[in-house]
Amino acid sequence: MGVLVVGSVAFDSVKTPFGEARDILGGAATYFSLAASFFTEVSLVGVVGSDFTDEHVQVLSGKGIDLRGLERVPGKTFRWAGEYSYDLNNRTTLDTQLNVFATFKPRVIPEYQALEYVFLGNIDPALQRDVLRQIKRPKLVGLDTMNYWIEGHLPSLHETLKRVDLLIINDSETRQLTQEHNLLKAARRVQQLGPKTLVIKRGEYGVLLYHAGHWFSAPAFPLEEVFDPTGAGDTFAGGLMGYLAAADSQTPADLKKAIVFGSVLASFTVEEFGVQRLARLTYPEITERYRQFKALTHFEDIPT
Amino acid sequence: MGVLVVGSVAFDSVKTPFGEARDILGGAATYFSLAASFFTEVSLVGVVGSDFTDEHVQVLSGKGIDLRGLERVPGKTFRWAGEYSYDLNNRTTLDTQLNVFATFKPRVIPEYQALEYVFLGNIDPALQRDVLRQIKRPKLVGLDTMNYWIEGHLPSLHETLKRVDLLIINDSETRQLTQEHNLLKAARRVQQLGPKTLVIKRGEYGVLLYHAGHWFSAPAFPLEEVFDPTGAGDTFAGGLMGYLAAADSQTPADLKKAIVFGSVLASFTVEEFGVQRLARLTYPEITERYRQFKALTHFEDIPT
Repeated sequence: MGVLVVGSVAFDSVKTPFGEARDILGGAATYFSLAASFFTEVSLVGVVGSDFTDEHVQVLSGKGIDLRGLERVPGKTFRWAGEYSYDLNNRTTLDTQLNVFATFKPRVIPEYQALEYVFLGNIDPALQRDVLRQIKRPKLVGLDTMNYWIEGHLPSLHETLKRVDLLIINDSETRQLTQEHNLLKAARRVQQLGPKTLVIKRGEYGVLLYHAGHWFSAPAFPLEEVFDPTGAGDTFAGGLMGYLAAADSQTPADLKKAIVFGSVLASFTVEEFGVQRLARLTYPEITERYRQFKALTHFEDIPT
Repeated sequence: MGVLVVGSVAFDSVKTPFGEARDILGGAATYFSLAASFFTEVSLVGVVGSDFTDEHVQVLSGKGIDLRGLERVPGKTFRWAGEYSYDLNNRTTLDTQLNVFATFKPRVIPEYQALEYVFLGNIDPALQRDVLRQIKRPKLVGLDTMNYWIEGHLPSLHETLKRVDLLIINDSETRQLTQEHNLLKAARRVQQLGPKTLVIKRGEYGVLLYHAGHWFSAPAFPLEEVFDPTGAGDTFAGGLMGYLAAADSQTPADLKKAIVFGSVLASFTVEEFGVQRLARLTYPEITERYRQFKALTHFEDIPT
């Protein structure tokens, strides 16, 4: 099964304690697509401006990502600039220029409408619903959102969540959305809103999965050098959804494997600026780190 | 093998968002001993005042904890009062009365001097060395410390660490001790200071183990209700050291199991005020949660 992603394609300017990069290819849908492309066919719905060059296209299409749904319109591509704190745990947005993204109305081209695995990147919940209306028979709908929509567009977000299977958000967003500090209680409230599966991202502390009344916890892969956390969450979502689409499965066992694949992919993304590491990553490197991940978390049973 | 613990026995007054308790039995050595007692014989070196009643003694001796090394001197027992923030992640010390603990000089009675598993609770590093001088042939020395000793007694702490095998501290203490933010790099610096095994406590995010060049990560057990985090770290250390002493082993496999047992024990401690939950805990409850812990972290291998 292929996966459809709807979200931002952008140029990022990023400053971390280890260096600086300007106007590099970024955006949630970009990281998502590159990560998912290791597992399955990816179709991208997004928008870019006339400053999006063949070279940028090549980074994505070179991985077999279907860009027929990527609109090109006159004007400039979405630009974001941010700076990370010395410990990389906090980031400040220095500049946001929505540009062509400001009037983005996602159009799912006919060739994509039968896709069954759908990921709605962090955009206006009303636009996320528009996308779902254009999909014939989705089997798994994943969704990302952020504090901006939770604070300012909650009724609309609630409406969208009714049609979502898998919600991928961070811990503070989970607490904000549910008005509940305890994540176990928060997860049950999320289920009442619609998504039967909740994935809570906790940055350097890893990920929690709640599904069918059970929890699964995966750490972040320990790294000596984290250069740039930008795109880690979107890479994670891409690895996760890409694996599930390829397996055409939502069993607990496959959800857990998907979480680990997502974590593995994200651990590569942060090793270098932007999509650099992801762009030259190989599948054997992914499986090798998956096994290291297993060693990192495995312990023996006790006799019954 | 039995385990020897040296540390504080105290009366705590604790306020959490869920309630308040006054002058309840606490102290690092208390939590440690109760947790370790599920696995092995525990001998306690500490000091209490004349306000320490038979009822308090019974909580410990009822679990078979050897209190011949617990000195009783005229005066009042160490008292601590603290309050936790609404999310339990921060605590403020409201009052500390060292009382008889102020002049505590740990004396390892002859009956204890042949014990091979030793845990040095969070006291003056010079006193920790005094204890080691009284032990004949330690096989595994574990140590806890805190920012106070790192800031004000670093050369003395360095001297003590040379004789320590297993250091159990939290993430901020690890960073402070090594002046290194990245925990992977910090772990190697800790090894250069002496301890070949480092256990980094991360509160609600679980624990990291560094040993023989490998990492192991264990989450905290997800709980619906955390009533009182006091003693969680000491309980963790007790479960960990108690298991290792019982197994008489320091293999990577047993270190990992010990980490999980410690985490399991700590998850019970925080469910109620003080030592209440720990005091009525049963071994079958421990093994049941160990298996739940396994389910929480287990995921399938991928084919080679």
